[in-house]
Amino acid sequence: MSDKRIQHEVLDYFFRPQSIAVIGVSPGTDETRFGGQYFLRSLMKAGYAGRLYAVGLGTGTYKGKNIYLDINSVPDEIDYAIVAVPAKFTPDILRDCIWKKVKAVHFFSAGFSELGGEFEANLQRELTDIARKSGIRFIGPNCMGIYHPKMGLTFNPDFPNESGALSVISQSGGNSEYAIRVGMKRGIYFSKVISYGNGADVNETDLLEYLAKDDDTKVIAMYVEGVRDGSRLFKVLQRTSKMKPVIVYKGGITETGKNAALSHTGTIAGSARVWNAVLKQAKAIEVNNMDEIIDIALLFKHTEPPKGRNIAIIGIGGGNSVFVADMCSSAGLITPLFSIRTRETLRQLLVTETGASYRNPVDLYGWSVVNSLRKVIEVIVENEKIENIVIHLPVGFVNAVNPGAIESCAESLISLPAEIKQRTIIVLLAIFSLKDMEIVLNLENKFAKSGLPVFTSAEQAAKALSGFIRYYEGIKA
Amino acid sequence: MSDKRIQHEVLDYFFRPQSIAVIGVSPGTDETRFGGQYFLRSLMKAGYAGRLYAVGLGTGTYKGKNIYLDINSVPDEIDYAIVAVPAKFTPDILRDCIWKKVKAVHFFSAGFSELGGEFEANLQRELTDIARKSGIRFIGPNCMGIYHPKMGLTFNPDFPNESGALSVISQSGGNSEYAIRVGMKRGIYFSKVISYGNGADVNETDLLEYLAKDDDTKVIAMYVEGVRDGSRLFKVLQRTSKMKPVIVYKGGITETGKNAALSHTGTIAGSARVWNAVLKQAKAIEVNNMDEIIDIALLFKHTEPPKGRNIAIIGIGGGNSVFVADMCSSAGLITPLFSIRTRETLRQLLVTETGASYRNPVDLYGWSVVNSLRKVIEVIVENEKIENIVIHLPVGFVNAVNPGAIESCAESLISLPAEIKQRTIIVLLAIFSLKDMEIVLNLENKFAKSGLPVFTSAEQAAKALSGFIRYYEGIKA
Repeated sequence: MSDKRIQHEVLDYFFRPQSIAVIGVSPGTDETRFGGQYFLRSLMKAGYAGRLYAVGLGTGTYKGKNIYLDINSVPDEIDYAIVAVPAKFTPDILRDCIWKKVKAVHFFSAGFSELGGEFEANLQRELTDIARKSGIRFIGPNCMGIYHPKMGLTFNPDFPNESGALSVISQSGGNSEYAIRVGMKRGIYFSKVISYGNGADVNETDLLEYLAKDDDTKVIAMYVEGVRDGSRLFKVLQRTSKMKPVIVYKGGITETGKNAALSHTGTIAGSARVWNAVLKQAKAIEVNNMDEIIDIALLFKHTEPPKGRNIAIIGIGGGNSVFVADMCSSAGLITPLFSIRTRETLRQLLVTETGASYRNPVDLYGWSVVNSLRKVIEVIVENEKIENIVIHLPVGFVNAVNPGAIESCAESLISLPAEIKQRTIIVLLAIFSLKDMEIVLNLENKFAKSGLPVFTSAEQAAKALSGFIRYYEGIKA
Repeated sequence: MSDKRIQHEVLDYFFRPQSIAVIGVSPGTDETRFGGQYFLRSLMKAGYAGRLYAVGLGTGTYKGKNIYLDINSVPDEIDYAIVAVPAKFTPDILRDCIWKKVKAVHFFSAGFSELGGEFEANLQRELTDIARKSGIRFIGPNCMGIYHPKMGLTFNPDFPNESGALSVISQSGGNSEYAIRVGMKRGIYFSKVISYGNGADVNETDLLEYLAKDDDTKVIAMYVEGVRDGSRLFKVLQRTSKMKPVIVYKGGITETGKNAALSHTGTIAGSARVWNAVLKQAKAIEVNNMDEIIDIALLFKHTEPPKGRNIAIIGIGGGNSVFVADMCSSAGLITPLFSIRTRETLRQLLVTETGASYRNPVDLYGWSVVNSLRKVIEVIVENEKIENIVIHLPVGFVNAVNPGAIESCAESLISLPAEIKQRTIIVLLAIFSLKDMEIVLNLENKFAKSGLPVFTSAEQAAKALSGFIRYYEGIKA
């Protein structure tokens, strides 16, 4: 059995444990704060299907679970331990876990190399040394751990039970949560999300290797602050990108950001220029924030692999047409002028609308024209060589003069044939009031269910589409 | 009397007319569509204080106003005419207006050089020729006209009656409306907004000269697609920037965008590189979308002229700290490390919070720490040489675990002494649900009233602050 095979099997205990002990359950402390009982409560609510035990200084029971004073008192084998105790106790706890033959440990505990002190860095090193000698693996310290909805594993009681095709490896717990919450809103669900913090033992590259072989994971995203072995990550990235897309957001790209990263996960962030070059060469998709990860994931979920960079831009409002055209063009997309024939067909279709424009971008101008939106798209698809269609709708403007019109627009897009929908992306603009926001949330939900990716920023939409196309150009090259 | 003096007085008729005729009132047509009755209705609703007349093919009355068959039948002097008739009738209407001694005309009518045809371009030229011979001035064609709330002038029945210090010159009607609606949401009100469309007679530079001398206008913003006399605009920009800030968003910076601009307002957009250099030299503040205009206007409204680029970043969440630090640093802001003394004071203040960081950025980490936010700011202001404070709060995260905490945070910021508030900007992040959005809208409102600028994007906040500082560096240099 190769080392890699062993590694994959060991990491499997993080994602598919048959039994879990949460160490550090102390009922009576503030329930709004993170701690053992928070993790225990979250697992119970998510319906973790394995055997679940509580260990801690609490006496008696917590939510019906007996609290054991130490892990060795638990009368069962334990695959996975979640540890939420003060940093200074963690080496002892790890030794207990080894004695108990626990396979995998998650250290939520903070107070290690992220504090910048010698003492704390040594404490972290001690954990790593203990683990390396025994073969036990741990994630963290200073992280939220694993979300794997298929198994009922979670670190937050509010995360969805639905599974999806995206897996995220994130050095930041907050960014993990951010991805999951934005995902929920936009119809992206997850296979696995790993918040791995300081990465003292299991690191981003181990996790990337694991996910590369994970059949449930179709798209991988990473939020990385610092990396210990850059050349290994590069090799694994390069290999993985050939199998499935890897989206990478590198935090700490500036001196100040690096400083912040040092205080956050105690890792040293590399130079932006080097990262940029490395990611490009590895055919990874580089993004600049967590939202852009969900943007790209939406395209991989709904959009067919594009054959080129030609797009049609269709929307309402001349200023917006200029804006969306500028954003798409800046992102490297091409908006070819339509043929005279197409223009004439469109002109006849939209004949009542002075102010409309037919060249590409198509500016539908008048609100009444929402009725012809579907026809406009069909005329263009039939007559022009374009690979993707960008539709922009100014929700607040339309809603102010013609309530309900934006919803009819949406219906006509949802009713498009699947082969057109797989090439179409929607941008909702001009969102001002709470009413507009409610409409947008409803539309995001409806569009997601009907297979249409939705954005609320033209810049983000254009960048995502360009990154998506670049991935396919890259793996073909 | 100099030419400029005359020009200012003539343009005054657009903003302070004693009487207005709306030409093209045809009741019975679809009320949701733009037209004469739309403008008439808007003026009546906004409470225009002058004498208001309707001219059109409608018979009888519209909302109690007698409809005259032509402007010469109106038994009164007319300062300003708003014309909403098909393009082909506009030369005749303009001649009627000259005969009637109207001083200023707004042509809403579209169907001129934006269509790209020879016939339509000639029609536009004809209008300009007629006007130049007589001394009458017009804005448009193909535009929404004037919003001047102090006089009850408006082109939309929903625009606010409140006046403010920002005036906007916009080639796009949609972008004018966008600015006004985003402004309402974020507490920015307007002195004057001019949608000038094709700019066949009165153009962006005429309007800039007018606003430069307008005492009610403290900050000017421009949305420009194309310019006929670049060197005149440059001179006026340079002169005006010394008196008051001019924010410029140039649309049509790419080939595709230029194309769209040509279809939108029939003007030819210049190269992005030239614009960039010209705006820099003229000390104008260049932005890339309409939101950034409101961003900068918020800083001019609430923030005192900064003495330098040093900032403190304070917020909740390690990942967000890295992100905000990267955004600020990329925008050219400086986040100096705090002294050991400040760090120690903060550490003692936040002693219960493992995971907190004190170096700058300050990561408050735990939710309970919202109580110490005000103290943290005061310690930093007292001990460090920083010019601005950036506070970032993850609304959705806090609200999920601790409802009400974000509002208490807000109260503690609102209660800061004025001299600190004038250096503080707020960034609200992690907005997921409709509830989060409602909280954000309420906070935007509360903060605006209490003199604190609020952003919902770290990137936008950082860019705005940097642009704001650059303006003061520029006029000092």
